[in-house]
Amino acid sequence: MKTTVYIFLLVFISLSLQAEGGHELWLRNKSTGHVTVTCSRNSATLAVAIKELQQGWQGKDNAKVVLTIKDDKAIKYDGFKLSPGEIQANTDLGILYGVYELLRRQQTGHPIEKIICNPSYEVRILNHWDDPDSSIVRGFASRSIFWRKGKNSLVVTDADKALWQEYARANASVGINGAVLNIVNASPLVVSEGYLERVKAIAAVLRPYGIKVYLSVNFAFPSMIGGLKTSDPLDADVIKWWNAKVREIYSKIPDFGGFLVKANSEGQQGPHDYGRSHAEGANVLADALKPFEGILMWRAFVYSPNDKDRAKQAYNEFMPLDGQFRDNVIIQVKNGPIDFQPREPFSPLFGAMKKTSVMPEFEIVKEYLGASIHLVFLAPMWEECLKSDTYQEGAGSTVARCTDGSIYPQEHTAIAGVANVGVDRNWCGHLFDQANWYAFGRLAWGNTLTSEQIADEWIKLTFSQIPSGQAASTLFSTDWTEKFLVPVKKMMLQSREAAVNYMMPLGFHHIFAMPNTHYGPGPWWAPEGVRKDWTPPYYHQADTNSVGFDRTRFGSDAVSQYHEPLGSQFNDLETCPEKYLLWFHHLPWNYIMKSGRTLWDEICYHYETGMQQVREFQKIWDMVEPYVDTERFTQVQDKLRSQFRNAQIWKDACLLYFQQFSLKPIPYDIDRPVYGLDYLIKNSDNYYGL
Amino acid sequence: MKTTVYIFLLVFISLSLQAEGGHELWLRNKSTGHVTVTCSRNSATLAVAIKELQQGWQGKDNAKVVLTIKDDKAIKYDGFKLSPGEIQANTDLGILYGVYELLRRQQTGHPIEKIICNPSYEVRILNHWDDPDSSIVRGFASRSIFWRKGKNSLVVTDADKALWQEYARANASVGINGAVLNIVNASPLVVSEGYLERVKAIAAVLRPYGIKVYLSVNFAFPSMIGGLKTSDPLDADVIKWWNAKVREIYSKIPDFGGFLVKANSEGQQGPHDYGRSHAEGANVLADALKPFEGILMWRAFVYSPNDKDRAKQAYNEFMPLDGQFRDNVIIQVKNGPIDFQPREPFSPLFGAMKKTSVMPEFEIVKEYLGASIHLVFLAPMWEECLKSDTYQEGAGSTVARCTDGSIYPQEHTAIAGVANVGVDRNWCGHLFDQANWYAFGRLAWGNTLTSEQIADEWIKLTFSQIPSGQAASTLFSTDWTEKFLVPVKKMMLQSREAAVNYMMPLGFHHIFAMPNTHYGPGPWWAPEGVRKDWTPPYYHQADTNSVGFDRTRFGSDAVSQYHEPLGSQFNDLETCPEKYLLWFHHLPWNYIMKSGRTLWDEICYHYETGMQQVREFQKIWDMVEPYVDTERFTQVQDKLRSQFRNAQIWKDACLLYFQQFSLKPIPYDIDRPVYGLDYLIKNSDNYYGL
Repeated sequence: MKTTVYIFLLVFISLSLQAEGGHELWLRNKSTGHVTVTCSRNSATLAVAIKELQQGWQGKDNAKVVLTIKDDKAIKYDGFKLSPGEIQANTDLGILYGVYELLRRQQTGHPIEKIICNPSYEVRILNHWDDPDSSIVRGFASRSIFWRKGKNSLVVTDADKALWQEYARANASVGINGAVLNIVNASPLVVSEGYLERVKAIAAVLRPYGIKVYLSVNFAFPSMIGGLKTSDPLDADVIKWWNAKVREIYSKIPDFGGFLVKANSEGQQGPHDYGRSHAEGANVLADALKPFEGILMWRAFVYSPNDKDRAKQAYNEFMPLDGQFRDNVIIQVKNGPIDFQPREPFSPLFGAMKKTSVMPEFEIVKEYLGASIHLVFLAPMWEECLKSDTYQEGAGSTVARCTDGSIYPQEHTAIAGVANVGVDRNWCGHLFDQANWYAFGRLAWGNTLTSEQIADEWIKLTFSQIPSGQAASTLFSTDWTEKFLVPVKKMMLQSREAAVNYMMPLGFHHIFAMPNTHYGPGPWWAPEGVRKDWTPPYYHQADTNSVGFDRTRFGSDAVSQYHEPLGSQFNDLETCPEKYLLWFHHLPWNYIMKSGRTLWDEICYHYETGMQQVREFQKIWDMVEPYVDTERFTQVQDKLRSQFRNAQIWKDACLLYFQQFSLKPIPYDIDRPVYGLDYLIKNSDNYYGL
Repeated sequence: MKTTVYIFLLVFISLSLQAEGGHELWLRNKSTGHVTVTCSRNSATLAVAIKELQQGWQGKDNAKVVLTIKDDKAIKYDGFKLSPGEIQANTDLGILYGVYELLRRQQTGHPIEKIICNPSYEVRILNHWDDPDSSIVRGFASRSIFWRKGKNSLVVTDADKALWQEYARANASVGINGAVLNIVNASPLVVSEGYLERVKAIAAVLRPYGIKVYLSVNFAFPSMIGGLKTSDPLDADVIKWWNAKVREIYSKIPDFGGFLVKANSEGQQGPHDYGRSHAEGANVLADALKPFEGILMWRAFVYSPNDKDRAKQAYNEFMPLDGQFRDNVIIQVKNGPIDFQPREPFSPLFGAMKKTSVMPEFEIVKEYLGASIHLVFLAPMWEECLKSDTYQEGAGSTVARCTDGSIYPQEHTAIAGVANVGVDRNWCGHLFDQANWYAFGRLAWGNTLTSEQIADEWIKLTFSQIPSGQAASTLFSTDWTEKFLVPVKKMMLQSREAAVNYMMPLGFHHIFAMPNTHYGPGPWWAPEGVRKDWTPPYYHQADTNSVGFDRTRFGSDAVSQYHEPLGSQFNDLETCPEKYLLWFHHLPWNYIMKSGRTLWDEICYHYETGMQQVREFQKIWDMVEPYVDTERFTQVQDKLRSQFRNAQIWKDACLLYFQQFSLKPIPYDIDRPVYGLDYLIKNSDNYYGL
């Protein structure tokens, strides 16, 4: 008891000492003048909208803004119409989004034009991988903002509510409207009465900001905690149990969003355990949610140890079920067929399931991209996925259009991002990881936005120091723009490709350190007895002749899961993009690349380039020192140093490991490895400190 | 008991598995033809000479060589006359040295001309810092080859004798003729009867190769182990004790060489403890040795915590005693005034003591130059010292000439090197540290040899694979010369300057990690209560205005210990060589250097250059892979990787530390630091593993 108190005190003290720790995110700008806001209605959401306008107004002093709520078919979901003196929407929440758009334009120096602005997806949701014990799986920003450990774990404090409100505001400001509060490997605790009370309290704080709460549930809850002998979805008692549980939840939280389920995946129970299909399993939960307008997000992240090619399995399992799911089920599909690797081709399920709602799942938290240590801006990765053409309904059938309702008449459209927030003072561990949270929201709202635009906005909102009373058009001096904005944006926009280069270039995938950190390199990891599809050699297939996973028609034929002409493009060495080369092809080390170099040399130059890119990022950042407060400058500088050391380790480890197969020298104009392979293997799962 | 046996077994196994571990040093070449050797006399030394000729002959098949011993005043000490068919000398040992010279010429492709070849110094001696417990102070090649730990420590085995013989042969082959078998912080054990028996056994093995044995003794032995109440050198009993001890030693080893003493230095007792001078102390031991023709080497490495400038103390203490020492005393003076730093100006004692024998002490073991991890060829450092002009007797009074008898009529001439050998399979820990052992011997013999010539010889002897029967002139193909010899020699010759650059450029000194390793950077180390002259800030004197130790006439006036015009040259910023700048001057960070850069920038570029030089060494070495056996190639490759990481650490630590004072940015065209200062300080004395 005493210990707990002390810990709280310590946390409080350490928080209050950090004056500029980045806690204010992209919401640090204050008003520079007075604005009069007129609105014909009242609501908690509208009150927030008015307050935001008044606190952040940077337009003309003593201007007037009218907020108008009326039905307009040009406006979709919670979209809005914006014009210099008015924000119009169908809903109160639409008004709030309009306010944030208006303020963003003021604060980034963009004109307030007459526009209609609709969200691309109905549901724009964060998946928190938070456990009720307050730990976060792949959490790099300390512990959960929702859950607390120990005796008083269910007591809702004022500090809790304040933090949740800040979180809600940040989400709303970028258009996010939902949050799954617990990890997909769901603990039964979350649907117990005490925890549901806490969920209710969270929902109450989030509600004015338009954020609905959702829960992950385990398919086996009926037998785990319901006192039933089975969780068979066709069992009458099971159906009854789910209906009752859903009713209980809605009795507490009438606008509860719904469930997220990970079933028959990585040890989680699912309908297969009872001889039922994913559809049969999902539909029971969907039926329970339906009367309350709840939705069920059902993950397609499934793979078994026996299949010849893990990349094919989600498609193989789910395609036959197309059309069998209830209309409030959405199949949640990771961007790529394996697992959030630095680069994957898009999942072939996108666009292929034509009679089922499908939603993309992105990972905002950088599980495989350097945790909260590396500076990696993820928007380019998501943009790459969203803009990928599936060809499912002819050219232009991008992943974006296949999932946002443009092509298929989905009952629900949605997009999910695995959250990267925790109780760290700066929310995300790395200051620049805030940009990924920001970018996810912006892309979820507008899935054709460019990474460049998003980066531009985020940098301006996060780093500009706007003097009081200054007009928007003069916000950003030429000096600041040229010496800060341009180089930092360049760094952000290159950062994902840099990570691909120094981690897994040219189609390499799943060669990270196993079994724990998923952080450093581990292409060698393959202990006896471990299932093969968890070991990197399963994916890189290196031998003294060649390297890469053959997914052509002569191999696993994964290419055929892609619609023509894409399947043939990937299948054919002439047309397969080199960035996916080793994903689809097993090739000799001396295969000649488009550059004229051998494959081996090209691999070496990619790793070297990645490492040199990080070195360049260090220079860029050091040079912007005059434009950033010391605390944020130093934080990022330190992390970039670690990132460089890690990039060096990735390069050294991968080149020295694969050199054992290629038996060729590393080109001599490349900086030599500075770590020995034995040393790197020995420290394999422990690179944070190096 | 059992444990000991297992350890011996393990050592044996690990040794025998290493086929090409570098154990053969520069003596790996075998004869390519038959030679008939004629000699009119017999002796153990001559037997060795004949055997060497026959085993290593690479001249014409069936050639004849005559060995002639006769008095010849043109020949000094153990010098020799060489001509194509004859080696002539005054002594048997001179013949042996002639044989090694002849074989070296054959094996390095140099012509056998008619030459007289005399050694520069009479005594060319290794100082082993080996303790009777078998540990070696600053030993980086495992344990002592002379001493063994444990129960059987005094048993002389056949393996011991074989190893000592190999050691003797290696020394003789480069002209070394003496070895102090124990460290200057001498344990009383070494003069006990049992240990003297072991010394006798060592002497017996070394004798045919012309290596005399010496011992370090502690000035306080009379009171420590002699049962006396004092060690006052003027006490009659003390004098008696020393006389008796010396007699005892000579009764066992009639050609015993003499003593080495470290007195009144770093906690060792000395004559000052009894109110006597160094001369009074030294003379008592010298008198005891004189009847047996033994010599006494008395170290000038003294400094007290109270003096304002440690660099001045040896001179201050010893100069007044010039002329007061017996003629069999040699004052042993470290190359520089502080302590074997990467670069120091020469000690002002050289040439200044005109009526006393003075001998240079070099450190072959790389205490301050990267241990056995960094590749640093030390010949350029010693050459720099030996060629330094003291101006004591006009221009051209080099340190070499002031110590080898060319200028002053010294009774004895000598030069000492602190040995770098241990029981490691390759003797020295680092393959290229063998070159330093080799170079010390060669420079001790010929103090005007160039580093380039020595490196050239060593590389040829160490790495060439001479096919049986091949003539000397075709030994080294153009390919091998261009692609191996030239780049490796270039690397060796640059390596010391590289180390200076990344460790202590521009006159920085004593900023290494204290108190233990002396390995990594530690410019910050200054705990309260520690004597100031042990802390790096005492030496670098950095503050926000300026940096460097002011030894000008306005400062400590150390410059005045140097003979004119040198004192004025060092004193004057216009003429002080920049390599000694911060040794002699305290200067503002923005002082403009000859390059036009500020001092701060110049410091940064030096550290960067040093690091980049190591990167270049890595490339050079990787490119010679086809010319080296795998084991030696890999050993060196691994060490170069570590050296690069350490160079990075040195650069980062020093730049980030001094940046706290300079408050200036590190020039942006320099690679950014990749370690944080806090991290480096925390791991200060533990860089081996990084």
